[in-house]
Amino acid sequence: MRLPFRKTLDNITAYKPGKPIEDVQREYGLEHVDKLASNENPLNCSPLAIEAVRKAAANLSLYPDGNATELKKAIANFYGVKETEVMPTCGSDEMVSLLAETFLDPGDETIMADLTFTSYIIAARMVDAKVVIIPLKDFKLDLDGMAEAITDKTKVIWLCNPNNPTGTMFTEAELTAFMAKVPENVVVVYDEAYVEFVTNPDYPKDSYKLYQKYPNMIVMRTFSKVYGLAGLRVGYTLANEEILNNVNKIRKAFNVNRLAQVAAIAALKDQEFVEKVHKVNKEGKEYLYKSFEEMGIKYVPTEANYIFVDVGRDCNEVFVELQKRGVIIRPIKETFVRITIGTMQQNQRLVSQLKEVLGK
Amino acid sequence: MRLPFRKTLDNITAYKPGKPIEDVQREYGLEHVDKLASNENPLNCSPLAIEAVRKAAANLSLYPDGNATELKKAIANFYGVKETEVMPTCGSDEMVSLLAETFLDPGDETIMADLTFTSYIIAARMVDAKVVIIPLKDFKLDLDGMAEAITDKTKVIWLCNPNNPTGTMFTEAELTAFMAKVPENVVVVYDEAYVEFVTNPDYPKDSYKLYQKYPNMIVMRTFSKVYGLAGLRVGYTLANEEILNNVNKIRKAFNVNRLAQVAAIAALKDQEFVEKVHKVNKEGKEYLYKSFEEMGIKYVPTEANYIFVDVGRDCNEVFVELQKRGVIIRPIKETFVRITIGTMQQNQRLVSQLKEVLGK
Repeated sequence: MRLPFRKTLDNITAYKPGKPIEDVQREYGLEHVDKLASNENPLNCSPLAIEAVRKAAANLSLYPDGNATELKKAIANFYGVKETEVMPTCGSDEMVSLLAETFLDPGDETIMADLTFTSYIIAARMVDAKVVIIPLKDFKLDLDGMAEAITDKTKVIWLCNPNNPTGTMFTEAELTAFMAKVPENVVVVYDEAYVEFVTNPDYPKDSYKLYQKYPNMIVMRTFSKVYGLAGLRVGYTLANEEILNNVNKIRKAFNVNRLAQVAAIAALKDQEFVEKVHKVNKEGKEYLYKSFEEMGIKYVPTEANYIFVDVGRDCNEVFVELQKRGVIIRPIKETFVRITIGTMQQNQRLVSQLKEVLGK
Repeated sequence: MRLPFRKTLDNITAYKPGKPIEDVQREYGLEHVDKLASNENPLNCSPLAIEAVRKAAANLSLYPDGNATELKKAIANFYGVKETEVMPTCGSDEMVSLLAETFLDPGDETIMADLTFTSYIIAARMVDAKVVIIPLKDFKLDLDGMAEAITDKTKVIWLCNPNNPTGTMFTEAELTAFMAKVPENVVVVYDEAYVEFVTNPDYPKDSYKLYQKYPNMIVMRTFSKVYGLAGLRVGYTLANEEILNNVNKIRKAFNVNRLAQVAAIAALKDQEFVEKVHKVNKEGKEYLYKSFEEMGIKYVPTEANYIFVDVGRDCNEVFVELQKRGVIIRPIKETFVRITIGTMQQNQRLVSQLKEVLGK
């Protein structure tokens, strides 16, 4: 018997999530394990969010508010935009799929970088779109190359700023020049999952409202990173109403769970926590830069909460050796790994173990 | 400017979720509102689940275990099946979409009833499949009609047992006769969201393992109903490994949130709670049957936690009138509404308000 699996599935490889900390502990008999693999928040999340979750846990049997009314209001108020321009989703990755399903028919072209957030390519292949891949240039998105790749079949372009996994960004001037070359019927998905970590003053100003300037632009942000709610799955998108009304047709009615909604509302209120995370990340970044330089290993300066590092040896080997020593990082390709910036203690442990592994 | 929305979206209407209880209270100045609209569990959920959520809320910043390892184990142990035959998802509706995306290319045919769980048609339209709709017969799925509709383009058939919103079921004998007519390369999705409420002894025996007898069959169940975890979004599917490996390629890596995973594990341990829910539902069903008979209104005997009732007046009018009086039900079509069986107190309030509205 042959079940009728779609052919396009042959081109898709299942995402392999990293092992849970507990599994690594068990496997290697380790008491302590630092996970610096998934760009999670080392300070956890705002205590207000935990409190809100514990309170709301009293009632789990009611479906979530399908409109996420209160959460939409909170986000709209925070940015001073209309509620109809906000759509929360089950993490940004849900929105990535929804956008592919909103705009891409089989054979349509979609442009993305060769080293960027992996959800874009999975979503595009799933709808049988033709994926046009533009190599990075100096670890940065090659916006010129991406603009040149546009044809009359192009429907969607995916930009990640700062880019995951390289941590590089493009500036306001670069974005403006790029958008001038993009026809207004081509959709530009602008994914800012890590925007709150940016320190470079040339980053696009007030980027949350770029969709107001460019109606074909869709801005995605998340509560998984600086707000530390990755475990609950909640991201959000800012875009014009016409786009969101269309996405709304195909999203799951109850995509954002009850606890995620209350946690996100509470988290948004605690901007002190956000500042603290930003500060710890900046300090960690500077410490790691210095340490890598002392060790003589190359890294790509980052605008996010992770660093793209050339460890000068096969990334999978280094990954395994670090894991044995209780530090989980993400091997990317060749000699490149991605290391999440942790607390100062975690960063120090990483540096010390990495020195041992690399014999530095 | 015309953004490149897919044409198929024109055929899809956004799901309109019911108003949250709080909104209805505010709108009509009501102190108390009973929601009997969404087949939610009137006894909430197991206290073990609430406790597990509150404990796990201490850490929200780590991504969920992408493999849902412990939850898979718990479900596999509960049923005595292999872990590789289990896949938890973000509610059953995520799996409905994933199955459409796994098996249906544009133009492929898919068969479903004309009054059944609405997610099937949304998912099928989203992938541009040709939807073949078979009317119900005496409020039941017309399995003969569905089998006759199979062509060489048919890829997926959707069965909901008991059927939502009518509450009817088909028997083991009927299922066996149907499956004998289904070619083995046509996938049968067998959705049992309400299986735990069934009281009819002719219901398919050990239906959880039907996928072992029929490799083209996929069994879906959920924690949203008898387990009362609708707010957290967690359903699960039992199917053969080949199918789940393919679905796994396209599912979101972190589809089931951390708290849903721990809550579902805890809920599964509390089978006393499940028995209590079953008992309260059975008592409520008998009370409502009797009350409807006294009022002289027709209903369809149910195997689930809701009753399909012919109120003899426009369903939307009755819905609005009941809502004003603090009871939310679900208008379906013409003179038919779907009423969730609540606690005895809720059922009594419903009956008293319904009498008033219908002048009985």
